[in-house]
Amino acid sequence: MATMTKMKTDIEIAQETKLKRIQEIAKELDILEEELEPYGHYKAKISLDLMKRLEAKPDGKVILVTSINPTPAGEGKSTVTVGLGQALRKIGKKAIIAMREPSLGPTMGIKGGATGGGYSQVLPMEDINLHFTGDLHAITTANNALAAFIDNHIHHGNELRIDTRRIVWKRVVDLNDRALRHVVVGLGGPVQGVPREDGFDITVASEIMAIFCLATDLQDLKRRLAKIVVAYNVDKQPVTVADLGVEGALTLLLKDALKPNLVQTVEHAPALIHGGPFANIAHGCNSVIATKMAQKLGDYVVTEAGFGADLGAEKFLNIKARFAGIKPEAVVIVATIRALKMHGGVPKQELHIENVEALRAGLDNLRKHIETIQAFGLPFVVAINRFITDTENEINALKAFCEEHGYPVALTEVWEKGGEGGIELAEKVLEAIENGNNTYAPLYDVNESIPDKIRKIAQIVYGAKDVEFSEKAKKQIEQFTVFGWDKLSICMAKTQYSLSDDPTKLGRPTDFTITVREFKPSIGAGFLVALTGDVMTMPGLPKKPAALHMDVDENGNAIGLF
Amino acid sequence: MATMTKMKTDIEIAQETKLKRIQEIAKELDILEEELEPYGHYKAKISLDLMKRLEAKPDGKVILVTSINPTPAGEGKSTVTVGLGQALRKIGKKAIIAMREPSLGPTMGIKGGATGGGYSQVLPMEDINLHFTGDLHAITTANNALAAFIDNHIHHGNELRIDTRRIVWKRVVDLNDRALRHVVVGLGGPVQGVPREDGFDITVASEIMAIFCLATDLQDLKRRLAKIVVAYNVDKQPVTVADLGVEGALTLLLKDALKPNLVQTVEHAPALIHGGPFANIAHGCNSVIATKMAQKLGDYVVTEAGFGADLGAEKFLNIKARFAGIKPEAVVIVATIRALKMHGGVPKQELHIENVEALRAGLDNLRKHIETIQAFGLPFVVAINRFITDTENEINALKAFCEEHGYPVALTEVWEKGGEGGIELAEKVLEAIENGNNTYAPLYDVNESIPDKIRKIAQIVYGAKDVEFSEKAKKQIEQFTVFGWDKLSICMAKTQYSLSDDPTKLGRPTDFTITVREFKPSIGAGFLVALTGDVMTMPGLPKKPAALHMDVDENGNAIGLF
Repeated sequence: MATMTKMKTDIEIAQETKLKRIQEIAKELDILEEELEPYGHYKAKISLDLMKRLEAKPDGKVILVTSINPTPAGEGKSTVTVGLGQALRKIGKKAIIAMREPSLGPTMGIKGGATGGGYSQVLPMEDINLHFTGDLHAITTANNALAAFIDNHIHHGNELRIDTRRIVWKRVVDLNDRALRHVVVGLGGPVQGVPREDGFDITVASEIMAIFCLATDLQDLKRRLAKIVVAYNVDKQPVTVADLGVEGALTLLLKDALKPNLVQTVEHAPALIHGGPFANIAHGCNSVIATKMAQKLGDYVVTEAGFGADLGAEKFLNIKARFAGIKPEAVVIVATIRALKMHGGVPKQELHIENVEALRAGLDNLRKHIETIQAFGLPFVVAINRFITDTENEINALKAFCEEHGYPVALTEVWEKGGEGGIELAEKVLEAIENGNNTYAPLYDVNESIPDKIRKIAQIVYGAKDVEFSEKAKKQIEQFTVFGWDKLSICMAKTQYSLSDDPTKLGRPTDFTITVREFKPSIGAGFLVALTGDVMTMPGLPKKPAALHMDVDENGNAIGLF
Repeated sequence: MATMTKMKTDIEIAQETKLKRIQEIAKELDILEEELEPYGHYKAKISLDLMKRLEAKPDGKVILVTSINPTPAGEGKSTVTVGLGQALRKIGKKAIIAMREPSLGPTMGIKGGATGGGYSQVLPMEDINLHFTGDLHAITTANNALAAFIDNHIHHGNELRIDTRRIVWKRVVDLNDRALRHVVVGLGGPVQGVPREDGFDITVASEIMAIFCLATDLQDLKRRLAKIVVAYNVDKQPVTVADLGVEGALTLLLKDALKPNLVQTVEHAPALIHGGPFANIAHGCNSVIATKMAQKLGDYVVTEAGFGADLGAEKFLNIKARFAGIKPEAVVIVATIRALKMHGGVPKQELHIENVEALRAGLDNLRKHIETIQAFGLPFVVAINRFITDTENEINALKAFCEEHGYPVALTEVWEKGGEGGIELAEKVLEAIENGNNTYAPLYDVNESIPDKIRKIAQIVYGAKDVEFSEKAKKQIEQFTVFGWDKLSICMAKTQYSLSDDPTKLGRPTDFTITVREFKPSIGAGFLVALTGDVMTMPGLPKKPAALHMDVDENGNAIGLF
């Protein structure tokens, strides 16, 4: 493709786009002037009062975008989400996009953002990728205020008899900072606090981020914050935020952040960008409030969930949709030729070379995810997200596979062509919604036992033979049952690269066992995190971080951000 | 005073005030629509482009508000600053207020804010006291990103040969968190970083905050950030941000924060609230950019500096005004009957009882600060900030003292009456500006030796007999001279409660020596911090923090913030 050599970069496209004032975008959505709180000219928060005003309005149809197991480079799920939203508008539908907000840490570390790409981006990308409207900073502050309240309580006499060896609440920063993974705090003598082992996570791994994204309103947020278990006392009984009496203060710190953020795409389609929990230690979806608000503002809501369908979609469908009462109408499964070839055994350095055989071998991964979505009873469309290295032979092989099995499929070129490049996908999605037999239901009942719930996820979603529990995990299950935590949903923390818990097992592994090493109860969020393998909750920076190329030009514009 | 029993609280007055839209406030100042970046309906950032547009416009006159040595409860300097701005407008002057933004840590800890009080407040006080427009979060993030870059550099081979025992860059949080004062980071084995002793300060103590407040524009900010000394290498040579190559990234993280924030007072007077460095470890004034912008937007700028005249005003006049090229026109010295009685020997519990003798004994403290302002060659007015417990006898005694010495004095009742209560003060200030013989000059030449500069401050401003330097400080002076840091200005870190370095010596101590224990070079800010006594750079929380009473009501309004 000769034209590809002249292709513009994401930031060039972003900076060339003449944005509309955010008031104009809001007006097109019939948001009242007093409901809009502008943050500069191109970003705004929307008052939660809007939800009361539009209470009786029917909800828009939710379309979930997920993907096969991704490669380390990502498969362009955000780009397809934005592109599909733009495409639906091009064919006359009132569509709105709902996405997660990015974390600053990875932005400073490794080149690459979370705002889509090419002509399917949300803008202003510099702002969204930096401080945006401060939501993550508010969450960081609430998280760390809670940590300070805990250590302060202990310092001033420890009335709650907290066991300082059993404090489970960690501090956070919205940065990649490996030196903070394991620390000792409270050093320096009696007036400086009580020494203890501690550690920092990245902000998006905070339970407060998960709670923030599952809360249905400010009062629900407060109720959930109150339930957070921060430590165990000397009798090994849980100590909560309610015991410390600071749920009101934490809610106060989060009250403005809880309002969804409105921005626009390159084609001026409206997008709500709000909340961004990890998809392993947490559920990986934007806020419930943003999705529900989008349902009031549009007839179609295009939203995404983190990583592949085994993580993000499973959690969207088993946790977020279930508890928020959101009924999804269709699922888009993004696949790329590159990732399928990788699942078929091609090493990273050879992904640009045509290899139809490997592609065919990798199709098993796609097929497993399709079966998962079918198990949830949902109609779906496979979206082939075209990359410049894809050949016609490869694309035809993928299409032939889908047609052979009767899987709806559409080639999308939304990076290069914006909404225009996603019209086929948009039409197939609408068709799937209309024709599809939607029998959506979560895969497990929360009243089942903890092992049974996990087994269902592992067997139906991952294709595992069985689940094993470590001695520690077994002991925790007993303890959780005593505490009455056994009726919560399950949030699996697993590698995103494989259907199994071993990141090197690509394609569609069979005959494998999932090992649950440990649980992390997120009682405020309402789920038990089941940890398999090592889960990174504080990333590190590479030797040459992306920050080295960042700067500001003489007009105050961002340089080197992407 | 019978009416006083029915007095409203600060938050009641704040929440009863019908605010104007920030666009309206901006319009009255002739700020162009494209120069205003609203943050919600009542806060906005102002583009630095405005400074270019108004380059040729003559500068407004700067009035500095300072005070005698404060009591732990504060003397209402912010209230007088706001009240004076309102009063000047009441008598037809185009006045604008420039103040610091508060830190969240103390807000969550001890009841009491930094937004003035009564009918002389800046609003919306809830927002300003919580996250405001995110400036402090941006500074926290830039500070901690730099810390992560340092540890990451060491982890990946330590090309700069940083001595991990001599890293002087600390992490920060905008919270009171004593457990973070002394920590060990980098634990957990080789892949988690390099273990070392470390500690956290509160954000307002970060050198980045001081730099932020002294920078004249974005490029100056970057130049200053590049000069920050973060560590010493194994040859004991300084390692800077420029050596790490991340000044561009840090500038990018601060580019939006650097725009001043516009808000309004209870009486709709415009106020720029921007930056808030400590007044001991740093220079304690709002940003140079905000003060200079205020000078372009108004004919009179009322601004304040932290703590008493021995700290904030000294630094405003020797550091900020000198390097920013700001010529102050007059100084208001706030005195309260309560504080003067305390300086006269009355214990805290008896301050509400009339005691003219003690008041007279305490006047020495006021007199010393007056002499300091006279030494700077500036006209001044003493403002008696009236409290409900003050008696007529006490006020008359203070007035008589001022009249006897020919000191201009005005009683202000701006808490209770707003601008109306400050008209006498406003008129006296205008008179002082017109009649006063203004020979303003800094007290020392930066080319003098480090001990000479410190001696001048200690002798002229504190009334000290002499200055002693610890062995460590002497060694540092030698070293700094080798590094070429001896021509910088001096930032004294001293207790705010006494003119001496001993907080228990109230009134006007004589025959005392100041001991400089150690220096902390702030090369990016452009000063050497001289530490006397212990300086707290990370406060702790009280046993029952104010946060326990904070909440959000069913309409999302703040409860218990003040």
